[in-house]
Amino acid sequence: MLPDLLTLSSFRTALTEAPAPDKTARAACEARNGQLTKPPGALGRLEDAAIWYGSWRGTDTPQILAPQVIVFAGNHGVTRRGVSAFPAEVTGQMVANFNAGGAAINQLAKLAGARMDVHALELDRPTADFTAGPAMTEDDLLSALRTGWGAVDPDADVLVVGEMGIGNTTSAAAICLALFGGSASDWTGRGTGVTDDALMLKTQVVAEGVDRHAAARDGLEILRCLGGREVAAMAGAIGAARALAIPVVLDGFICCAAAACLAAVSDGALDHTIAGHQSAEGAHGALLEKLGKTPLLSLGLRLGEGSGAALALQVLKGAVACHSGMMTFAEAGVSAG
Amino acid sequence: MLPDLLTLSSFRTALTEAPAPDKTARAACEARNGQLTKPPGALGRLEDAAIWYGSWRGTDTPQILAPQVIVFAGNHGVTRRGVSAFPAEVTGQMVANFNAGGAAINQLAKLAGARMDVHALELDRPTADFTAGPAMTEDDLLSALRTGWGAVDPDADVLVVGEMGIGNTTSAAAICLALFGGSASDWTGRGTGVTDDALMLKTQVVAEGVDRHAAARDGLEILRCLGGREVAAMAGAIGAARALAIPVVLDGFICCAAAACLAAVSDGALDHTIAGHQSAEGAHGALLEKLGKTPLLSLGLRLGEGSGAALALQVLKGAVACHSGMMTFAEAGVSAG
Repeated sequence: MLPDLLTLSSFRTALTEAPAPDKTARAACEARNGQLTKPPGALGRLEDAAIWYGSWRGTDTPQILAPQVIVFAGNHGVTRRGVSAFPAEVTGQMVANFNAGGAAINQLAKLAGARMDVHALELDRPTADFTAGPAMTEDDLLSALRTGWGAVDPDADVLVVGEMGIGNTTSAAAICLALFGGSASDWTGRGTGVTDDALMLKTQVVAEGVDRHAAARDGLEILRCLGGREVAAMAGAIGAARALAIPVVLDGFICCAAAACLAAVSDGALDHTIAGHQSAEGAHGALLEKLGKTPLLSLGLRLGEGSGAALALQVLKGAVACHSGMMTFAEAGVSAG
Repeated sequence: MLPDLLTLSSFRTALTEAPAPDKTARAACEARNGQLTKPPGALGRLEDAAIWYGSWRGTDTPQILAPQVIVFAGNHGVTRRGVSAFPAEVTGQMVANFNAGGAAINQLAKLAGARMDVHALELDRPTADFTAGPAMTEDDLLSALRTGWGAVDPDADVLVVGEMGIGNTTSAAAICLALFGGSASDWTGRGTGVTDDALMLKTQVVAEGVDRHAAARDGLEILRCLGGREVAAMAGAIGAARALAIPVVLDGFICCAAAACLAAVSDGALDHTIAGHQSAEGAHGALLEKLGKTPLLSLGLRLGEGSGAALALQVLKGAVACHSGMMTFAEAGVSAG
């Protein structure tokens, strides 16, 4: 079981002192992979994914039987600046849709055999407009991290974290600009589909926000000043999964921005994660590069909710099923070439 | 039910007179897609895939409940030229492995909830070495096409065809060179993993074979002269699926070479197919381009067996699940932006 998360510094410690994958299991996975009835390397990235997964689960014949999908939702004060194509009330409407089973992520979680949980974080209390002040207080940040930290099922064997929050691509772009530098236009995209004019405004808002919080250099402080409750909750869940040695499939731009805040705190904080997909949100490819992650899928998705990661979970399940279910050359009586 | 396939010319007619997708269903799928609770286009290629699938199944709320995976196996006389890293007896050993449930495709078919059938085509009677004469007689070709034609379950709602046949990347490369021109080295790759020297020899063998059968210009004649029994059976199954309006997920280089023979007979013969993945076999990307197909996955697989297509089937299932399971804006009470 996880210890309760009482302070920001205990979260920081959880990241810096996080467990490493099991080297013995990794070696056993590699040995098994070399004996399976296929030419060496013929399953391509599935082989790497299965070995990675087994090394975190501590066995050379892992199974995926209990996936968990968690969708976090939050509202963003910065929407008052007109950065989204959808009105802010859509966040709450989509939470109702998640709870009724009508969204894309519901279908994809069901297909993957995943438990799905929805956490709406104080939707009636949007974060502050980050161009006017920090998006969250320290208490707000801790509370959101705790929501994510506590949302992870300790018995899950793989985790997807998704989000819903009108305005949150603006927040994610600001986080990336603060973490990685460059110009606001490098990190700002069309989100749910803003027009050219709105994209110019959105880019300006991102630049303003990052300028205002130029003093924030640390991953968690950047998350506090520019993030959102659902973004912080995703970070909390990814951190909890690490402490529990539960592999995580990362979703799109916002999920990866949350993850990037953790990587800024501790280099290896994302070793238990795999990039599920590259989204159509323009800067996601650059963000994945910064994280050193190669996506499993690239299908032009830009929905969030954890949808791309839940789809990629099917690929990971395939990788693990092959690794653990195939016979070896010796078992099958096949000549090894 | 399908009519029996009694002659090569009746197969040709089945291709040229194949049914088109349902235009009314396509329009209904497009209309439904535009009403689902997501920003327009936010599911990227999943949207196109679901609309394509529904148009072939004749409904705007299609489901995938009965996938079929068929693996065809055959032996190739050209292996006597030393073109493969594995001995020819591995074909039969792998058929035993398929039947025992121990291969990669068994795991992936099971994960996809697919029925899996294995057809070994006269393994004790390899095709002729195509550098010495036609790989098959007309009777051989018809027999193999009939095996594929008859193997498709008329109640399947999506089909994957895979193969096993030591030496069949050599056959597929020769088919591509004969169909599309270029040089033998453009189409010849390492298959199961031949060395540099063996690759040179393999390239030479491909060139020799295509030179020897330079008179073969027609898709089915090229298939007869340079193909293999399992390659022809795949072509027969893809043709049968078209006649039954069953969508097909194409696998790797060999599957696509079989499919290309059909496209050479009739332009629209592959309209009911989608490219499952791009394999690591060097020429597969170029072959997909010739077929005008963009793969769903690109994960460095080069195993055959239908493995990449079975994995891609999971993505198609996700696409269809979202399309048919999501609520519309009106049903969910979500503002449409």
